[in-house]
Amino acid sequence: MTPEKIAVNLDSLRGKSPLVHNITNFVVMNNTANALLSIGASPVMAHAVEEVEDMVSISSSLVINMGTLSDRWVEAMILAGTRAKETGKPVVFDPVGVGATKYRNDTAAAILEKCRPSIIRGNASEILALAKEAVNTKGVDSTASSSSAVEASKSLAIETGAVVIVSGETDYITDGTGLYSVKNGSELMPRVTGMGCTASAIVGAFAAVDRDYMTASVSAMAVMGIAGELAAEKSSGPGSMQMHFIDELYSLDRNRIIAHAEFSKEI
Amino acid sequence: MTPEKIAVNLDSLRGKSPLVHNITNFVVMNNTANALLSIGASPVMAHAVEEVEDMVSISSSLVINMGTLSDRWVEAMILAGTRAKETGKPVVFDPVGVGATKYRNDTAAAILEKCRPSIIRGNASEILALAKEAVNTKGVDSTASSSSAVEASKSLAIETGAVVIVSGETDYITDGTGLYSVKNGSELMPRVTGMGCTASAIVGAFAAVDRDYMTASVSAMAVMGIAGELAAEKSSGPGSMQMHFIDELYSLDRNRIIAHAEFSKEI
Amino acid sequence: MTPEKIAVNLDSLRGKSPLVHNITNFVVMNNTANALLSIGASPVMAHAVEEVEDMVSISSSLVINMGTLSDRWVEAMILAGTRAKETGKPVVFDPVGVGATKYRNDTAAAILEKCRPSIIRGNASEILALAKEAVNTKGVDSTASSSSAVEASKSLAIETGAVVIVSGETDYITDGTGLYSVKNGSELMPRVTGMGCTASAIVGAFAAVDRDYMTASVSAMAVMGIAGELAAEKSSGPGSMQMHFIDELYSLDRNRIIAHAEFSKEI
Repeated sequence: MTPEKIAVNLDSLRGKSPLVHNITNFVVMNNTANALLSIGASPVMAHAVEEVEDMVSISSSLVINMGTLSDRWVEAMILAGTRAKETGKPVVFDPVGVGATKYRNDTAAAILEKCRPSIIRGNASEILALAKEAVNTKGVDSTASSSSAVEASKSLAIETGAVVIVSGETDYITDGTGLYSVKNGSELMPRVTGMGCTASAIVGAFAAVDRDYMTASVSAMAVMGIAGELAAEKSSGPGSMQMHFIDELYSLDRNRIIAHAEFSKEI
Repeated sequence: MTPEKIAVNLDSLRGKSPLVHNITNFVVMNNTANALLSIGASPVMAHAVEEVEDMVSISSSLVINMGTLSDRWVEAMILAGTRAKETGKPVVFDPVGVGATKYRNDTAAAILEKCRPSIIRGNASEILALAKEAVNTKGVDSTASSSSAVEASKSLAIETGAVVIVSGETDYITDGTGLYSVKNGSELMPRVTGMGCTASAIVGAFAAVDRDYMTASVSAMAVMGIAGELAAEKSSGPGSMQMHFIDELYSLDRNRIIAHAEFSKEI
Repeated sequence: MTPEKIAVNLDSLRGKSPLVHNITNFVVMNNTANALLSIGASPVMAHAVEEVEDMVSISSSLVINMGTLSDRWVEAMILAGTRAKETGKPVVFDPVGVGATKYRNDTAAAILEKCRPSIIRGNASEILALAKEAVNTKGVDSTASSSSAVEASKSLAIETGAVVIVSGETDYITDGTGLYSVKNGSELMPRVTGMGCTASAIVGAFAAVDRDYMTASVSAMAVMGIAGELAAEKSSGPGSMQMHFIDELYSLDRNRIIAHAEFSKEI
């Protein structure tokens, strides 16, 4: 894995402009669609049980984000995820807020079981909650350190067969054996709503063009972080950050990737 | 049709501030509402079957956009569209993604039949798909040229009785006999999600104050394109474009319209 | 009530970062979440009947906004509001568009009766419509002056036991006996969609840290208005206003509050 590989993946993404099917939450839909357009992908948002299977069939990847759930949406997520797996499309799962309510825990468990995601992306507390759910460990601490989230992410990867991404100040990406860290990013990013959701969508775009989900995930998280760093330099707060971030995704190129990418293989 | 007519329509819109009822998609609601406010209209978003008939009754026009469908929303679209026709209000229909799934095709067909839209706005592939659906022609090519979309738009206009707008690098507006083209716009516009949806909403605002739907549509598309051109000059990417576009709609005036409007009567 | 009290409330808010549960409309969710993050609170949006009671149980306050209603959402609002009252959490109610349709009137009446909001915030016409609904007065004029909205807000406060906020060029806050006015703000604010909805969310954040709902409400409305004034100075229209407003909420501090707060106790 080299910065060059990220640049090649970005070129490939822009060349193919893969259709990324998002079943995501109401808070972030606009930003997610704009981020996908800006990086060079084609977003589609569709959630009706009547059409999600058809939509995923013409898409290159599926992103399931459970930020704002309700019964029919969960049904659609599972229909779409099942069809995606049947047709060999990558499925990215973003378990927003898992651990907060029983309904989220049950939904996440159902999606893990029925859709078998290719990649799971969450923050430390979500990955810890999900690992507890999936792996049935005990004593998860809500103030858990990053390192314990790394262990949980490995367990979760092994249990589910998915590549697991823990995002935070440092992002970790693991398939249960290998482990990458990505250090790009800015402290303004968590002050903008839905940056994690956008990351999951960008992962979906890279997974559509790079079927090695470890390198696809490292590419996506590095691209997010670099755009975030460059945007933060121009920003006075979360409002301008949200705007500049989209512009930076659009302007990102090989040179900026080579100059700024900061990641390493840990294991 | 003259630039002066567009300026008169804009003055009329700002003087009357028509209430535009939108049943639209989750991705664009915020931008659509802000675009309507910035041009001088009053937006309302309401989709409950329990209230859409009451809401359309106090509105000056209705915009139906099928970007993110589900069963109850389709039911509400048809209730609202039916009431709008009964009470003589203009109905603008934006058939987002028609052609992509059977559900979208069936929904579009039902809306065409039951709501009899006054104006239909889509991109070339949507108008081609809709014309095929409505007119039952064969062999629609997904990589169709603009000129074939123009022929399809004329057929669709004749078949449905609606004014049809094909938006793209050049926008075409036809009632089946007459044809206008509008050349304003910027290549950054399709890089911002929902610019087409915003165009449909702005068409709804102009249709509320100019019951000649050809001149209302030309006015709306020219205003969109001029605001887009002026915004693009100040923008570094799709993020800043989205922001400047709203500011330019707000700042648009008679002088800028006269200086920048670029349209012509083709037939 | 002094500017110092507002500064203390803001420090408290940033120190505690209360979780504010929003059941709100599709148009404003992104801006509401960003405004809450920028002022220092933690937003959560959840509307499923399956989880709202669990979510409100871990939250510090609940904001119910009826901008885009439908049956299941109303059911969730009432479940969440009921649980919030049972567990002693402040409930803020934003009766968007009450008076426009029977469905909105019935929903608002049900929420008032079953959730007993701690604070109600609306514009003059909404408060007039709600007071008519709740107090059963006659002859509410749709072109009513501010002063008549003030009288209606007092009646509504006495009838419901809630603190009532009428927002507008001057904001009024009353518990039925006392009355404050807040003069901060900018004429660009009503040109941005959802500024009222954002105000209600910010009220929810302050109510989570100051259980005197009069001083919490004055703090929130002054903070909104100050951020709006400072943002307007940098803005060219509603697009840039929306962005700068978020940045200003983020940058707001004790000095700016002391320098700019403009409110007074009327009664």
